Amino acid sequence: MFFSFDGIDGGGKSTQLELFGEWLRQRGVEPIVCRDPGSTPLGERVREILLDSGDETPIAARSEMLLYMAARAQLVEEVIRPALAAGRTVVSDRYLLANVVYQGHAGGLAVEAVRAVGAVATDGVTPDCTFLLDLDPAAAHGRLDRELDRMERRGDDYRQRLREGFLTEARHMGAGVHVIDAARTIDQVHAEITTIAARILGAST
Amino acid sequence: MFFSFDGIDGGGKSTQLELFGEWLRQRGVEPIVCRDPGSTPLGERVREILLDSGDETPIAARSEMLLYMAARAQLVEEVIRPALAAGRTVVSDRYLLANVVYQGHAGGLAVEAVRAVGAVATDGVTPDCTFLLDLDPAAAHGRLDRELDRMERRGDDYRQRLREGFLTEARHMGAGVHVIDAARTIDQVHAEITTIAARILGAST
Repeated sequence: MFFSFDGIDGGGKSTQLELFGEWLRQRGVEPIVCRDPGSTPLGERVREILLDSGDETPIAARSEMLLYMAARAQLVEEVIRPALAAGRTVVSDRYLLANVVYQGHAGGLAVEAVRAVGAVATDGVTPDCTFLLDLDPAAAHGRLDRELDRMERRGDDYRQRLREGFLTEARHMGAGVHVIDAARTIDQVHAEITTIAARILGAST
Repeated sequence: MFFSFDGIDGGGKSTQLELFGEWLRQRGVEPIVCRDPGSTPLGERVREILLDSGDETPIAARSEMLLYMAARAQLVEEVIRPALAAGRTVVSDRYLLANVVYQGHAGGLAVEAVRAVGAVATDGVTPDCTFLLDLDPAAAHGRLDRELDRMERRGDDYRQRLREGFLTEARHMGAGVHVIDAARTIDQVHAEITTIAARILGAST
């Protein structure tokens, strides 16, 4: 079973992902947890290029999108596909959805083109269940108290496009995506996520 | 006008590209010379990942292809498109063709998929003229007297697939690709290239 967590920064994604991992472990499932981009030596090198070099040398939108795709293709072959083949449960911090939203809906690239490249990059390996943590961008931004990276320093209009992009893409992707109201307490959000996951895993909480 | 040089390693590509640049300068044309992957800070970082890290961590075929595409997308936006818009002549050491051949025809990825991703990465910026230096792989390999990189250390079967891939792709691409018999002397090859280029540039040698 392959789970992913996505949504705008500040929506509690990291916290919920950690709680979800603990919940799985309490049920006797030791998940393979990864982050996209990242979780492979190649992916971490690509992540470094994406997050650090933007100020001196602007990365072209298409190049940025393709770097994310390259990191994801490596993640699929090196981590996710072998883990699923071995019957493990995978939990990923972001996946293709974020790429389509950040570089497509909010970044100005043709959404269809990003989806098409994504189909090649992932080779059909898609999450069984995606938790989309949805939150008003102004509220989400206020929650971030660490130093912001290149993505996070952009403005409110951009974050609004992100939110709308995520919701549009969720409708496009259909049943596998669960939009979670992340404005509630950590416990409430966690409870909804685990209720859905328990149903999918075919067992009671 | 956008020229590219391609073909298997050892076919004299670098030598011919240098001679071609000199020939252009003698005609009063100062070309923008670039290499793909490379010629941008991002492209050089990607190039480093592609050529150096293959021994410890095998790069997945799809990831490799996408890294080349990311470097190329940046090359187009940062170098080639602005140069062409300013009326400059661009000469590139390799371009999309190599990617389709190395990762598609010879590397096992679906050729149509690589072409489709290539169309997104280049955003329609394609060479007006590609010189494909064609040579028997055994002869080409014998010419390489420097330390070989990850690509070059592969076997004869692989190089044969590369040659056939280049020729197949040249037929697919049509009129813009000129297959040059690289088994001849440097001067003979240069003479053919400049005859074709002069015709394209609309002036006599």
